[in-house]
Order: sequence, then structure tokens, then C-alpha cells
Amino acid sequence: MLVKEFKLYENREDVTLTAYVLAEKGELHGQGMRPAVLICPGGGYFNCSDREAEPVALAFAAMGYHAFVLRYSTYMEGAEGFIDLFSDIPVKAHLTHPTPVREIGMAMLLIRSHAEDWMVDMERVAVCGFSAGAHNTAMYGVYWDKPLLTEYLGVKKEELRPAALILGYTLSDYILLRDTKKNELDDAFFRNSVKAFTGETDPSEEKIIEISPARLVSEQTPPTFLWATSEDAMVPVQHSLRMAHALADHHVPFELHVFEKGDHGMSVATQASSVAKSQMNADAAKWVGLADEWLKKRFALALPEKTAFEESMQN
Amino acid sequence: MLVKEFKLYENREDVTLTAYVLAEKGELHGQGMRPAVLICPGGGYFNCSDREAEPVALAFAAMGYHAFVLRYSTYMEGAEGFIDLFSDIPVKAHLTHPTPVREIGMAMLLIRSHAEDWMVDMERVAVCGFSAGAHNTAMYGVYWDKPLLTEYLGVKKEELRPAALILGYTLSDYILLRDTKKNELDDAFFRNSVKAFTGETDPSEEKIIEISPARLVSEQTPPTFLWATSEDAMVPVQHSLRMAHALADHHVPFELHVFEKGDHGMSVATQASSVAKSQMNADAAKWVGLADEWLKKRFALALPEKTAFEESMQN
Repeated sequence: MLVKEFKLYENREDVTLTAYVLAEKGELHGQGMRPAVLICPGGGYFNCSDREAEPVALAFAAMGYHAFVLRYSTYMEGAEGFIDLFSDIPVKAHLTHPTPVREIGMAMLLIRSHAEDWMVDMERVAVCGFSAGAHNTAMYGVYWDKPLLTEYLGVKKEELRPAALILGYTLSDYILLRDTKKNELDDAFFRNSVKAFTGETDPSEEKIIEISPARLVSEQTPPTFLWATSEDAMVPVQHSLRMAHALADHHVPFELHVFEKGDHGMSVATQASSVAKSQMNADAAKWVGLADEWLKKRFALALPEKTAFEESMQN
Repeated sequence: MLVKEFKLYENREDVTLTAYVLAEKGELHGQGMRPAVLICPGGGYFNCSDREAEPVALAFAAMGYHAFVLRYSTYMEGAEGFIDLFSDIPVKAHLTHPTPVREIGMAMLLIRSHAEDWMVDMERVAVCGFSAGAHNTAMYGVYWDKPLLTEYLGVKKEELRPAALILGYTLSDYILLRDTKKNELDDAFFRNSVKAFTGETDPSEEKIIEISPARLVSEQTPPTFLWATSEDAMVPVQHSLRMAHALADHHVPFELHVFEKGDHGMSVATQASSVAKSQMNADAAKWVGLADEWLKKRFALALPEKTAFEESMQN
């Protein structure tokens, strides 16, 4: 396996693509181009959580897919620590929408530029995100073919097409977010998250819809796998349900799993992604196997029925 | 993740340890020392199969363990291609028993020398092998505390102790192997495999017992997870059953799963390890999840009940 980090901007350390490229050697030679999963960790557009980065990449690599982790633009710009949620944070315009979703497009083009070397099947690249990273992923799912990306990046939409989306406890509808009653801490968190992401304290209705993928789904949105927990107190499950509803309305194939138990931010929900037992949950952890089954219907390698040795024994 | 290859002998390219060390960074900081799994691919002591190397390492890495692949001494010395099984192969004395089992000890010491850097919990390193690699692993399980290893390596047995063994379709008893009726090809394969491994065409009864872990199990053999398929025509399931029988006789905790269907050499039995559909089997693939559950009883990370944030919210 090749593990290598690439900067998306020459002069910035915080926006990176980390490649986890499977070795195609020896007896494994001959599997051909492999599908890939591009992962966007969550973190409220403040940071990109490591809990939703490498452990997720390894889950998909273990399924036989190349994996990539995109650390897109977030308010902290890669710095450690926390911001004071109860202060009025200054706007950082270079980080606001549409920068994060455009960076998914940049990551796709970066992968494409190495596709032959790495044996990546560019027709089968899924984008997978969690929480705010799932929001960014869903945004990509509804904007990949729009001028916001194609014109900005100067490419045809075919070069940006995602084959599938995987959304973990996604945020999908900023009107729902605005109207959800929150406790004081969550209120401060989201007020600043919205400001970090949009550059505005009180974005207009038009702006809110522009960043609400559940309201922008079309027939061009790729097949989507969604999962969440019904107990999620931070990003209510209704965000996943509204996204699923929109996919159903537009006849986009999707699969949805809502587990009853589990807080926000479960990642793979095992010790691989947890710093405390509260972040582990045997039920929620089943999403990985369910996503594996779902992906295989689209991403199965084109393998022959028998090995060359088996064929030779028959003849 | 750090992926790095180390040579076990300065002047040889074929005997290597490939480390897959999990990143301990950012939000994942604080999980502490992690258990590890050291993997020995199979290949009849002729080679080390890539199908039983990286895909297995990634399966354990996805569970949250560091993983290491040991390419131990085999007859082909890392060269590609096949030997003529119907010729009389010359002995290569530097590769024969006890070299391969000693190399597991060397790998343990190499990991130990980096344990602090890599955050490896040396009290919890499992050794996992497949086919001939499982035989080598089982050999390590019965010889780790014997002079064959401790005196040769000049260390105390405590430095070599494996915490557990994981044996996939193991070979465990060379008397059973000798007495098993085989077809012409398998007969040629094993005649040469025995010669490659022992340096002798017709080893004595004493020698045969010396290399038959099922006959050498003691109370010092570590807890063991075994799996195999009942249809395996190359290494009959009786090898797994005899090993399990010996473990039971010596009150060593073990778990055994025999799946009905599946040929020899399934590895993780998914597309991650397969070059043809015949090497995939949804039943046999369950061994990975079963091993995960079994390992967790011994290898669970010592995580607190709640995150620091959750604790702060309670106070």
C-alpha cells in the first residue's frame, strides 16, 4: 500500500488529499483497475476529524478499494484546539462556500491525474462523508455537474462525476437546521458553523437553499447510501430522512439505515475510531458491512470465474 | 498510516517485515499502545503469497490493530514463477527448518525495537498465518519459549511470547500429511515442499514430529483461533482438527470455525484477496468478523467510558 499526502494548494498545509493506494503486486496482479472511495471527515466546518479519516479509509481499503481522505477547507485551517463558540468569530472568506465542495472536485481531478499509475477506475469513485463532511459530499452530489464546479475547474462534468455517495449522519437542510430548537451550546456551535461555512451570520432564504442538498437533488444525483442514528441529538435524523425523501422523489437509487442507538459522530463505531467506549456501538458498526454489500453491487471487480491455474487443470 | 518495509537480513531482499502502523494523531490521540497482528502468508514454503499478505494486514488494521506482514524464508527466495514440481529440487540449507520459525522471533524483536515509536503493545501481539504460513505460526506457538528460539536469538522467552495465534487452513501434522492419499500433482507438490522445508526427501519419524505442532502443543501454547473449510482438498481439515484436539487436551483456550464450502487458500475470501470469483466465498469470509470478536476479548483497547468532553459536560 502506498500512503501519500498531497497538498491541494501549493502554499497551504491544511487542505490535503491522503492516498491509500492498494498494492497491485505478485499474486494479486491481474485484478485490474479498482474502484475507490474518497472520504470527507466531519467537524462542523471547523476542522476535519481524524476519527472519520484513516479508520474509514482502512475500512474501505479492507474491502478491496483504493481510499482517499480529503481534508477540505475548514475554519481552523488545520490548527489544533477549539474556537470560543460564544464569541463572534471573524469571517474567513477564502474558506467559505463554495470552496469546500470545489475541493472535492479538485481531489477528483488529482486522483484522475494518477489513475493509470494507481490503477483507479475513475468511472467508479464514490464520495463518502460524515456530518459536515457528509454535507459537503451531498453538496458535491448535487453540484458536480453544475457551472459552480465545471466552470470553476474548467473541465467537463464527466471528469467530475461521482459514482455513488455514502452519507453518515448527514446535515442536508439548513432550513431544518435553522428551525430546530437547540440547547445553548449547540446553538452557539451551529451559529458559528453557519458563519464559518457561509461567511454570514443570518444567511438569506435563497442562500440557505443554495447550501441545502436535500432541496437540490435531481436525477443527476448519484446512487446514495445513507446511515444515521435516531438518537443523534446534534444533527437530527430528519436530515437523513429529508435527503432520502428527495432521492426517492427523484427516483435516485438509495439505501438508508437508521440505527436506534448512538450519539452523533460514531464514525465506524468500533475501537478503530474511538477514544472512549461511548463512541463504540455494535449496532451502528453494522453500517460498514451494509455499505460493503451495497457498494459491491456497483463496485465489484471484474474478476474471471476461475484462476488461470484452475482453467489449466480443466483443459 | 506508516507503511514501511524492513529487511531481516542486511544482504537479502526476500525476507522482509512490512509494517502497517496506524497513525496516532489529532482526535485519535490518546488511544494509547495498540495490540498488533503479525501475518505469515502461505505458499507451501515455496513462496509467500501476496493474496495472504496486504489484504489480511488491512483487515486487521481496519479493526484498529497495527499489522505486520512477514515474508519469511521460502524456497523461491522471493523470485517470481514456479519450480518444476516433477524434478528433484536441490536442497537450500539456509532456508530449511528452523530458519522460518526463527524469523518470526526476529520479526517480534524488530517490532519490539520500534514499539515505543509505533505505540505497539508488545504484551498483545498475535501471530496469524495461512496454510504453510499457519504451520510456521503454529510452530512459533510451540517453540517461542524453547532454546531453538531463545538461545539462537539470545533473548529471554518473555521477549518472544505471542499473545495469540490465528491459523487459517493450517498444516499441523506431517505424519498425517505423509499418510494422506494424494493425487499426482499434490503428491509432487508436498514431496518437494517437505524437501524445501526440511532439506530431506524422506525425513525420519523424529524429524517429522519435530515439525508437527499438533504433536508439540503444551500449556505454554497461546490461545488460538482456527478456521478452515471442510472441502479443502489440498490441506485436509483434519490438520485443523488435530491442532484443536491438542489445544483442548492441554486446556489452551481456542476457537474453531470450519465452513463447509471453499477450496484451499481462501485468504479473506472477498474481492480484496481474489483474482477470480472461485476465491471468494461469503461464508468463509465470515472468519474475519469472528476473529475480530474473538480478538476483542483479549485485544480490546483500554478506552475510558466517556470522552473528555462528555466528562466535562457532566461536571
